Order: sequence, then C-alpha cells, then structure tokens
Amino acid sequence: MVDLTVRPLVINYKTLEEFKKFKEYGVQELSMMEDLQDNIIENDSESPFYGIYFGDKLIARMSLYRIDEKYDRYFDPPQDYLELWKLEVLPQYHDRDYGSTLVNFAKTFNLPVKTNARQGSSQFWEKMGFEAVTYNPERDRGENPYVWYPEGVTEQDV
Amino acid sequence: MVDLTVRPLVINYKTLEEFKKFKEYGVQELSMMEDLQDNIIENDSESPFYGIYFGDKLIARMSLYRIDEKYDRYFDPPQDYLELWKLEVLPQYHDRDYGSTLVNFAKTFNLPVKTNARQGSSQFWEKMGFEAVTYNPERDRGENPYVWYPEGVTEQDV
Repeated sequence: MVDLTVRPLVINYKTLEEFKKFKEYGVQELSMMEDLQDNIIENDSESPFYGIYFGDKLIARMSLYRIDEKYDRYFDPPQDYLELWKLEVLPQYHDRDYGSTLVNFAKTFNLPVKTNARQGSSQFWEKMGFEAVTYNPERDRGENPYVWYPEGVTEQDV
Repeated sequence: MVDLTVRPLVINYKTLEEFKKFKEYGVQELSMMEDLQDNIIENDSESPFYGIYFGDKLIARMSLYRIDEKYDRYFDPPQDYLELWKLEVLPQYHDRDYGSTLVNFAKTFNLPVKTNARQGSSQFWEKMGFEAVTYNPERDRGENPYVWYPEGVTEQDV
C-alpha cells in the first residue's frame, strides 16, 4: 500500500541504495555516499530529501533546501525561501499525483518556493500554482526558474 | 559545408527561430523573443550564445557568461570565470565533435569554466579535462558542477 505521508529521508545505506533507482542520480548522492563511508556523517543523518514510500520502497522524492534571506534574489520582500529540486517519481508510479503530493507538501511551510523547471514541465508547474519569473541571465544562467508565492509575496525587481 | 568556426550569436528573429530546434528551449529564449518584440533590445543585439553553422543553419550552440569574481565560490584564487550552459548539438550532427569544438573554444579565454553536467554526461566532461567539485548542498542545490581549471587555479575550499 502506498502511504501518502511525505517523510523526511535520513541518509543511510538503504536510502542511498534506493536513490540509485532515480534518474537524477549525481554528484549530490555520490557525495552523501562518500561522507557516510568516510564517517564524515553519521548513519541516519538528516538529509534535504523528502519521499513517499510504497511499503518499504521509496517511490518518489524531492530535495528541499531552505535558502537564507541574504541570498534571496527572487522574492519581494526578500526572505528565506525553499529551493526545490530532484522532484522525481519512479516511472511505474507515474500519473498518480505523487509529484503533486510532494509539491503541495513543500508549500505547507508557507515559504516561497523556487525550482528550475525541467524541459517540458511548465504545464505541471503552472497546474501547481507556480509562475515563470522575468529571466535574468546573470542570476538565472540558463535555468528555467519557476516560483510559488505565498500570500503577500511578489516578484523581486531585477 | 560545416564551417567549424565558433561564432558569437546575435539576437534576431532568424537566430530565435533556429533556437526552437534545440531541446533546451526555455524561459531564456522566450525572454529574448519578448525583448525583441517589445523593442527592449535591438535587432542583432549581442547574446551570451556561441554557435557553429552548417551553411546558414545553426547546428550547435552553447551559452557562455562571464561571472564576476565577487560571486566566485568555486575557484582559488577567486576570479572571474565562465558559466557554460545549453551546450547542444542537433541530433543529426552528433558524433562529429562539434560539442568538443565549442568547449575548446570556451577554454581559449583562459578563464576557469564551470558547467552543470547533465545526467550521463560526466564522461564527456572528463574527456574535456573537466572535474567534479566537492559537493556543497547550499551552493550547488542539486546541480552536478563540473569545472575546468586553467594553470595555477585550484578548487576553492567550501
């Protein structure tokens, strides 16, 4: 049974093994693996990842990281916001809104959310209430930033 | 005939029409199109793009943007560096090293180069003399940064 609870993921060998099933496996995951192997981080350390489980199998995940107000170049008034990345549902579990469940969870912090929309995903983000920002090459460097504004928050002038 | 000269691309309707053939078409291209239509930028304005032409057809491109030293969090000593993105060769022109030609062109500025390596591209970047950096979640936010160091430049401690 799919338990639709979104859970924070801890870093241990089981989680890192499950991460290998996701397409967006890269430097971040390799670095967590090395840190665990070298005892730089402890087993069951906190991670910036959240996930949804089917039984004991991780079937969807995202990374969510709180960015300090002093780095905020997207929101007015400037404030802490969440950067969302590596949103991914395993292929056999697509089309069941698990991606939306994760994004809605991100919104519950009531902080602005910023993501870099992958090619062809604008429709999904718009459905989730996100908007494209005014593109700024120096800040955005080829990203396709989409943001979600909680009430009272607007786009920062660039 | 393919002219292997790498040319800076100017922003005009022809270039923007050719950009539509590339997979990584997004907010950046749409924004340039709007700026041109609204006369915010002039026809034939400079762009951060460089490309390779087959006759008058654009077949490969990349974006290259000089980042100011004060934002440098990758290199030691801190310095201006180039952010490289949207490196792409049209599918029918793959396997002829046009991607390498563009990357080698980027190196001729003799500034450090940083890119966000796409899934499955590490081998290409390593062949081009790039290296993965030590992952820093706050700085890298899910990117897979690969960098190229000119002589005398090393990785910045994070």
